Amino acid sequence: VIHEFNLIDRIARATARRAGVTLGIGDDAAVLDGDPPVVVTQDLLVQDVHFRLRATSFRDLGHKALAVNLSDLAAMGARPVAALVGLGLPDDPAITADSVLELYAGMEDLAAAHEMTIAGGDVTRAPVLTLAVVAIGHAVAGVAPVRRSGAAVGDVLCVTGALGAAAAGLLLVEDPSLAASVKQAESLREALRRPMPRVAAGQALAAGGATAMLDCSDGLALDASRIAVASGVCIELQLERVPVAPGVASVAATVGRAADELAATGGEDYELIVTLPPGTVDARRTSLDVPLTAVGRVIAGPPGIRVVRGGAAVRLPRLGWEHTTR
Amino acid sequence: VIHEFNLIDRIARATARRAGVTLGIGDDAAVLDGDPPVVVTQDLLVQDVHFRLRATSFRDLGHKALAVNLSDLAAMGARPVAALVGLGLPDDPAITADSVLELYAGMEDLAAAHEMTIAGGDVTRAPVLTLAVVAIGHAVAGVAPVRRSGAAVGDVLCVTGALGAAAAGLLLVEDPSLAASVKQAESLREALRRPMPRVAAGQALAAGGATAMLDCSDGLALDASRIAVASGVCIELQLERVPVAPGVASVAATVGRAADELAATGGEDYELIVTLPPGTVDARRTSLDVPLTAVGRVIAGPPGIRVVRGGAAVRLPRLGWEHTTR
Repeated sequence: VIHEFNLIDRIARATARRAGVTLGIGDDAAVLDGDPPVVVTQDLLVQDVHFRLRATSFRDLGHKALAVNLSDLAAMGARPVAALVGLGLPDDPAITADSVLELYAGMEDLAAAHEMTIAGGDVTRAPVLTLAVVAIGHAVAGVAPVRRSGAAVGDVLCVTGALGAAAAGLLLVEDPSLAASVKQAESLREALRRPMPRVAAGQALAAGGATAMLDCSDGLALDASRIAVASGVCIELQLERVPVAPGVASVAATVGRAADELAATGGEDYELIVTLPPGTVDARRTSLDVPLTAVGRVIAGPPGIRVVRGGAAVRLPRLGWEHTTR
Repeated sequence: VIHEFNLIDRIARATARRAGVTLGIGDDAAVLDGDPPVVVTQDLLVQDVHFRLRATSFRDLGHKALAVNLSDLAAMGARPVAALVGLGLPDDPAITADSVLELYAGMEDLAAAHEMTIAGGDVTRAPVLTLAVVAIGHAVAGVAPVRRSGAAVGDVLCVTGALGAAAAGLLLVEDPSLAASVKQAESLREALRRPMPRVAAGQALAAGGATAMLDCSDGLALDASRIAVASGVCIELQLERVPVAPGVASVAATVGRAADELAATGGEDYELIVTLPPGTVDARRTSLDVPLTAVGRVIAGPPGIRVVRGGAAVRLPRLGWEHTTR
C-alpha cells in the first residue's frame, strides 16, 4: 500500500491546513507560527526496514536516528531545540535495558553537540525495534524556513561536502570482501553508520538567500528532482562536477560503476542540496564550515531533472533510493 | 526490557535538559520556551499491543490515535495547534490505501473540531500497523503548563466527567454475551473506541489554578498515585464519590465487581484528574463544559495513594492498567 501511486498526495488533499500552521504536509518539516516560528519533523526507523541490528551498534543507531531528523531541520535552516523519542521494544533477549541506554547515549552525544534536549517520548512494546524520533527547532530570527519549492530559473544548484561515502559504505557492508583494496573502508562504513547533519551550514544557507533546500537522504539526483518538481522548474545536474568523497572511486571501480554516478545516486549522505541565486555562490562558500560545490543549474523546461556529463545527456538506471513513499 | 525497573528513570538521568526546554522527560508532555510556550507530546500505538484491527474501524483508530495525544495536551492546559503522524504500514491485504485514508479521516474530523492541522509525518513499511502521533500545542497566554508534581497538602482531588465507560466497553468487547442485559452497551463500546479529550476543560482548569493535572489513561487510582508520587504527597481517594458512567454498574454486576472500583481502576477514560486549592472547586465547576467531581483530598503522609470507601481503607487488587512502562 505504501507504494500506491500518490498516497501522500491523497493524504495531503484529505487534510486541511488551519490557522497557526505556515507549512503543512509535503516538505521536510512542518512550520508553526510563533516567535520564533517552530519547525518540526518526524522520521520512523524500523528494524529490518531501515537498519539491521547485526550491522549497527545501539549507540550508532541512536546517533543516526537523531541525525536524520536534524538533517531535516538543517534543510529548513532551523536551529534544533528538542527531540522526542518514541521507542517500540520487541521481546528480544538481544535488546536489554543497557542496549536502550546505549541507544539514548548515541542520541544524547549528538544532542549535546547541538545544545538541544531529548525532552520526552514514549516507550512501549512492538514486534521489532521501532524508533519514531521527532525533532523540533526554531527558525533563525528573521529568516523564513527554506522550502523545497522556491527554486527559480537561473539559480545555481549546489551541494555541501562530498557525496557517495554512505553508498560506498553500504556496498562494503553488503560484501566485506570488497574492502581489501579500499584504504578508506572504515571511514566509508562510518559515513553510513554515523552521518553528520549539516546543521550550521543549513542555517547559514537559509540566512544567505537559499531559494530551495533539501537534505540528500535518497540520492542527489532523486532529491534534486524533488526540488525541481516542487518548484516547477527543470534542474540540470552536471555529473562531472559532483564532489566525490575519498575512497568512493575505489569502491565504485571494484563493482564496475562510475564514481560520479555512485556519488550522485547513492543515498544517506545527509549533505544539503540547495539552490542559490546566480552570483551568490562564492559569498556563501566563504560563510560555511563545509565545502560548497556548484553541481548544476536551474533552467527552463519540463519540471524534473536532466543529468549531463560533459554537456551530453546521461541516462541513469535510477535516480536514487525510493525506499519510502515519497 | 520495558518492564525493567526504572527504565524511564535511567533514561531521564542519562539525558540533560538544556537551554530552551522548560520541562523534559517525565511528564505528559515536554514544554519548550517561546511566545507562546510550545507543549509537545508523542504516543505510539502498535497493532496487537494497543489495538486489534478486528475490534476497530480505521476511522475510529485514527480518532483515538489523535485523541490520546490531545488528552496529554489537555492535561497540561495547552491548546492544540498541529499533529504529525508517523505511520508504519504492514504488507497486509486488509490494509489498503483507502484504509489509510479512512484512518486520516478519523484524525482529520477530530483535528477540524479543535481547529488544528495535521501538518506532516512519515510513512514507511513496518511489520504491523504502527502509529506514532505527535501533538503540538500552545500554552494559554499567561498560564504556565500544569505539571503532575504540584499537588499540595490541603488540595482537593477532582475528576472531570464520569469514569468506567471504557473499561466496561472493553469487558463487552471481550465477552459480547454480557451485552444482552446492558442497555447502554453501544455507548460503552463507543467510549472505548472514540474517547473525547477534555481539551477546553484542561485549558479552563489550568487558567483556574490547577496545581497538578494528568489525564486518566491508565485508571484514576493509578494516575492519581502518579500525581502523589511526583508531588511527594499522599492522596486519599474516596471510592464512594467516584462518578460512575451510565451502564457501568450493569456491566460490573454481570462480572461480579463493584461499580465504583471498576470506574476507579479501569483505564482509557481520558478524563482529567486534577488537584485544586481548597475553596476553588465550586468556581471551577461553573467554568467547565463538563461535570467536575471532588473524589478525594491531598493529605500529609507517605507519597502514594490511599483508597477508602466510607472512611474505611480499601485494598484494590490493582490500581489500573500498567500496560506501558510508566
